[in-house]
This record gives sequence, C-alpha cells and structure tokens, in this order.
Amino acid sequence: MAIKPSSRIKFELNKSADVWSLFSPLVMPKTSLSLGQGFMSWKPPTYIRSAITKAIDSDTSVHHYSHPKGRPRLRNALSNHFSKQFKSLNGRKLDVESEIIVTAGANEAIYSILGAFLEQDDEVILFEPAFDQYMPNVRYNGGKEVYVPIRFHGDPTRNSTGDDWKIDINELIGAITPKTKAIIFNTPHNPIGKVFTREELQAIANVAIEHNLLVISDEVYESLTFDNATHDRIADVPGMWERTLTVGSAGKTFAATGWRVGWVIGHPDLVKATLATTMRIVFCVNSLAQEGTAVGFEEADQNNFFETQRKEYQERRDVLTKHLDQIGLPYTKPAGSYFILADISKVNFPEDYPFPENIKTRTRDFRFAWWMAHEFGVVAIPPSDFYGLSNQHLGEQFIRFAFCKEADILDEAGERIKGLSNYIK
Amino acid sequence: MAIKPSSRIKFELNKSADVWSLFSPLVMPKTSLSLGQGFMSWKPPTYIRSAITKAIDSDTSVHHYSHPKGRPRLRNALSNHFSKQFKSLNGRKLDVESEIIVTAGANEAIYSILGAFLEQDDEVILFEPAFDQYMPNVRYNGGKEVYVPIRFHGDPTRNSTGDDWKIDINELIGAITPKTKAIIFNTPHNPIGKVFTREELQAIANVAIEHNLLVISDEVYESLTFDNATHDRIADVPGMWERTLTVGSAGKTFAATGWRVGWVIGHPDLVKATLATTMRIVFCVNSLAQEGTAVGFEEADQNNFFETQRKEYQERRDVLTKHLDQIGLPYTKPAGSYFILADISKVNFPEDYPFPENIKTRTRDFRFAWWMAHEFGVVAIPPSDFYGLSNQHLGEQFIRFAFCKEADILDEAGERIKGLSNYIK
Repeated sequence: MAIKPSSRIKFELNKSADVWSLFSPLVMPKTSLSLGQGFMSWKPPTYIRSAITKAIDSDTSVHHYSHPKGRPRLRNALSNHFSKQFKSLNGRKLDVESEIIVTAGANEAIYSILGAFLEQDDEVILFEPAFDQYMPNVRYNGGKEVYVPIRFHGDPTRNSTGDDWKIDINELIGAITPKTKAIIFNTPHNPIGKVFTREELQAIANVAIEHNLLVISDEVYESLTFDNATHDRIADVPGMWERTLTVGSAGKTFAATGWRVGWVIGHPDLVKATLATTMRIVFCVNSLAQEGTAVGFEEADQNNFFETQRKEYQERRDVLTKHLDQIGLPYTKPAGSYFILADISKVNFPEDYPFPENIKTRTRDFRFAWWMAHEFGVVAIPPSDFYGLSNQHLGEQFIRFAFCKEADILDEAGERIKGLSNYIK
Repeated sequence: MAIKPSSRIKFELNKSADVWSLFSPLVMPKTSLSLGQGFMSWKPPTYIRSAITKAIDSDTSVHHYSHPKGRPRLRNALSNHFSKQFKSLNGRKLDVESEIIVTAGANEAIYSILGAFLEQDDEVILFEPAFDQYMPNVRYNGGKEVYVPIRFHGDPTRNSTGDDWKIDINELIGAITPKTKAIIFNTPHNPIGKVFTREELQAIANVAIEHNLLVISDEVYESLTFDNATHDRIADVPGMWERTLTVGSAGKTFAATGWRVGWVIGHPDLVKATLATTMRIVFCVNSLAQEGTAVGFEEADQNNFFETQRKEYQERRDVLTKHLDQIGLPYTKPAGSYFILADISKVNFPEDYPFPENIKTRTRDFRFAWWMAHEFGVVAIPPSDFYGLSNQHLGEQFIRFAFCKEADILDEAGERIKGLSNYIK
C-alpha cells in the first residue's frame, strides 16, 4: 500500500474480527433471532416521534447546524432533568452554558474526553469486562489501557447478583502508576448488569482523589434499573464533582440507538476542554435527533415515561430469566442495563463442532456463541471480547444476552434454546 | 484546575475567539441578517422530507444503529450516483463494501482520515484560505499544519474570477519536507468560490505522486457549480485514485447541514484505514438522516433536483452580485460553492469605531465585519481566520458573504448595505 496507515491504528487493522463483525451477520438469515447487539426491537415513544415528525415540516432549524454545545432547548431539558438527579448540586441548576454539552452519542463523548485530557502514553484504567470501544478510544488518543477486572466470586452452578462481582480496590491501587491519568467507570454495568453501591463508588473515588485522576463515568443505562435498585453517581461523592465527567445517551434512554445523541455533564473546566475536542471532531450533533431528545425529557413526566419503561424492561428481563431458569442455565440477575450474563461453565457443547478457523482459535464463549447461533438460531455475544488479551479467560465462562427486545422475541428465543438443557452436565 | 487538559488542545483553549463565536451571536438580535455561517434558510426538498417522515413511524431500523460503514441503502445510492461521476472508474461500479463509507459529516470524515494516517509530527499541507476546522483536525491527530497560500493576483478595484487565484506550484514544492504526509485540497473552494481546472489538479497531483502524499479532497460543494463550470476530481487524475480520499456532504448537497451525514470515497486500502478510526470515534451515523440522504440520491433525477438546485443557487448568486455591483464593491465571481469573497480594500470605514477589545486587535476584515454588522445589520465572515497566523494579512482585504439564503433575504441584505457605497474611496 503506497500510503501507510498510522501506527496508532495498526492494532485495529491487524486484530482478529470483533464480536460485532462475527456475530451480527448471523442475524441476517431470517431464521436467526438476535439477542446480540444491544438495540431495541421497537421505536422511540409516540410522543417523541410525533414531535419530530411535526418539526421536520415546520421548523427549518432542525435540518441545520446546531450550536456545538448542543441545541439550547436540549441543554435546558437536560439541565431540568439532571439538576434534580445530581445530589451534589444541592438543588442548584446545572448551568446550560458551562456544565452540559451534547455529543454525537456517548461513544463520541468518551472519545472527545480522552482527546481533551490524555497526553501521549498516559494510562487509563478500564474495569473488565469493559465495553469494547473504550480501548481503541484510549489508544487513538495516545493513551494506554490498563485493565483491572471486576472479579466474579459467585457460584457457577447457581444464580448470582451484582454483589457477586467485585472490584478489588488493592488491585486498582496496584494498577496506578505515575502515568495514570483517568479511570473509565460504568454503572449500571454492561454486560454484568451490576449497579454499583455507594460504598463501592466511595472506594473508587478515594483512589481517584488520592492520585488526582479524572473519572469518566459512563452512565448510559442509568434510567434502566430494576427491583428498586438505586443508581448512584460517582460525581456525587464528595470531592468528585471537579474530577468527574458523567456521560449519558439518548439512544439508551429513549430507544433510539441510531440517533447518536449523547451528553457530558460536569465541572465547567472539564466540560470546556471536552467541547474543544468534540466541536472539532463533529462540529455539532444531528439537530433533529437533539430536538427529539429535548421533547423526550420535557414530556417524560406527563407520559409517565421513565417509570413505564423501567417496568417494561423489568418484565422483559423476567421473561428471559424464567427461560434460563427452566433450562438450568445460571446467570447474574441484572439490577440495571438490558443485558444478562449467563454462565456457560456447565454447558457441554461439542468442541469438535465444525467451527470456522476464526472462531476455533478464540476463547470458549466464542465457540459456544457460534454453536448456539447455528444449532438453535439465537445470537448472543461472547463477552471475552470485553477483556484485555491477558484476562480473556475470565470472560469465557459467560455469554451475554440482550433483553432490549419485545417479550414475544424473548419468549421465542427462550423456546429455541430450550434444548440447551440437554447439554448441561 | 485539578485535572490538566492535554497539551494537544492548549492552542484551542488559549486562542482568541473564532469567527463563529464572535459573529454568530450578532445574528441573534432579530434586527441582524446573517450572510455569515453557511447554512440554508430553507429545508431539504419535500420528496426527502416526506420519505423520512414516513420512515419515522413505519421503519424501526431508522431509529437504531446502522452499520459502521453506513446503511447499505445509502452506500448503494452513493455508488449509483458517484460511479458515473468518477471518470477514472471507466464505467465500473464503486464497491459498496470497500470503496465507500458514511461519516458523521464531512468534518468528521476529514478528522477520521487524519487519525487513520498521521504519525506524530507528520506535516499536512493546507491551502490558504483553508476551512478553519482543518487545522485543529490536523493538530488533534498529532500532525502539524503547513500553509501554502492560494494567492490573489486580481485587481482590487474590479471584479475577478477564480482564475485570479492561483497556487504557486513552486511554493507548494518548497513547503514539502520529509515529514509531509498529506495535502488537504478543496474544490469548489470555500471561501473563494473557485473551481480548480484540470491543469491545476494535474500540477498538484504531480507533486503528490512524486512525494508519495495522501490527498484529502474536500468536494462538499461539488453539486453547486455555475455557468457550466465543470467540477473535476483530483482522484481522476491518472495515478491519484490510490492516494486520494474524496469527501462529500449531504448537508451541502441536500440543504441539511444539521443532519451530519458525509461520505468518503476511495481506494479500499485507504477506506479501510478510515473505517478503523471513524467506527471507533462515532461508531455509526444518525440512521434517519442516512435514510433521507439515500432517498435524496435515489429520487434526485425524477425530481430534477440537482439541475434545479444549481439554477436556484446561480440566481441567488446573481441577486447578491447585482447588489455588490451597485454598491461598487468588487468581488470574485464564484463558479461554485455558495460563498462570495468581496474585496473591502476600497472601503474606508471608521477605524476609530467603538470596537470591543477582541475585535480591535484583529485584522482589518474583523473590524470591517463588526462595523458592517452594527451599522448595517448584516453579518458576514472575516476570512483571515481561514489563514495561518503569519498569512492573515492576505485575507484581511476580503469579506465572505454566504448566499445560501432565499432571494428576499439576499435582496434585503443588499438594500441594507447599500450605504457602504458612501464609504468607498
């Protein structure tokens, strides 16, 4: 190739195919059901759709550039919604000019934050399993990822909860070096479904404060918590507001993963630096989707949106767990997010199955996922891709099901994988 | 500030306010007319709007993740449209899997390309005046911008054409060093309105080939050419396909600057590297806007869209130039884009006007633009911000008017600035 790509992307060009490229095409044959990629099988709520449909013909501005900080209407809606939620604000309003910006999805938010703060060779702590975009986002901005596992202490033969997954704070402290600049944290957690407790947040915050670290808190599933679980924010831990950027997502909040609208909330100095990168990367965010997101928040209460949605997701979770219980496949019961990690330790699938080469050489969860997709017509995601190379064995005993799908799809998937029970030791 | 921003963004945090922050707020008072920022005063065409309005309620997929390469429907539409346009293809079809990707606007396309190819301290040639996002896009990806001016050889007392603006190829050659990796090129040109000739493209291509440079060809205004000007592509110059990435924009093409849909077309190796960055930066692009863009291309011919749009823009250009002629303000007649550079050398505005400090200390065009906005209620953009620091004097004799506005707005703007003639020597 005449023009050489940058050395910063070589790892990406050389790596084995990622889970999405391997498993999304399996969904294409109409015979497969996807509980793989985390997008909903339904549309955003009617009250939002009718607002954007109307705006398309009546409001020229929804087709044109928005302010790089985000449309004023959306920043106001975000301030109204989130000012009540961040306890450290003590009732004051988030300032729409300096404490909130809109980004092209949560992913671009995290990318922009890393671009705004990392020096070459700075280190960033990622807790495994870690959403697989974090690592390239760190590397492309000159940083180096350092993994700390969230260790599973549960019993692989029975159901667990988020409490069975723990960050060992001494492991975290041991991972800190003079080069450590930031921690990417995620609660409610993808794929574990764990909602971190205030005590756990405090413990991480202590480390961040002591070592002067930036915390990027990915809270895209914050509106999706179940069984009265409370979503606490690391930004609310005393001393953390000035070192935390909280990232959210309209896609997860309003069933609109293709809108690519996210936001960043935090101290003005941190937000200002992030604006300096995001406005040069994307200039501004799709205006129509911003308008839809604004309406989503403005009219959420009158539509009882968040409470209804939470209830519906909890029902979907319960449909899927009922099937897993019947099959005898243990899982971590999620208190938040729309993912379930099932434990496949007990599943005795044929290791001599005709796997293609790029699956045969991967960890056990890849082979299981391939086998299940082909034998049962249900696609799920092998979570070892969410671990660094040296810790992938920690992920291979699990498989991730997404339950952001209508109940009849979940039921049909449950029926299809019923035969798994024949392979359980 | 406890958490230090990256040194890579310091220039951005420390710099004087950019043109957009200074001049966009002046439009806010309803008394000002904006011929400043380049967005249209109208909506995308009805045939596109009705398609997306329909899709919102009938097609769940327009609300959810698209493929990181872009929606298949859009890649097909782009292939159908552009395969006819790139002469070097000799009638073959652009491959939708390897030669086309969709990006979050042309800006994010250029950012991603630079991220995919620049090593730390690589140099990138920018031709001045250069769109002001190029420079930070280069720097954020570890590069260094090197400016080569497009020099004005016209007579400041009379109208000019694009032919009066020339790149001195010896100046270009003189700017090349062993560190030079890429050239960012732009035709039709913002803000000059010049459409580069085949001979000019050939001369730049010769340099790119001799020095093994990547060419990023920003052709976002390609569908907006006038007076039978021909838009030629540097990718079509023999030997250039394998070193050129051509960037386009739905925003400019379909009057939808807020949709943030762009695309990159080129050799599979170059496109693959760009995909490796863009899919990690934004993951994918707003799905609904991609659907709208697909329909835009698919049904363009039956709506006679491109021809009608060209004719309308040419009429708008002629409305504005008629006013400038009456005032006696010379300009470069644009053969493409929707900008006119007028020459303010002859305008004798009061240098002791009560300028704010951040305007007083800038080049003459900033002061003129400020004065004109406050005295005549018309906002235009000072183009010296499109030059590197050492060449800003080359831009200060001009002012940029955008004519992507309805004729009555252009007429009213023309009426308002009529009084400029009293200040012309």
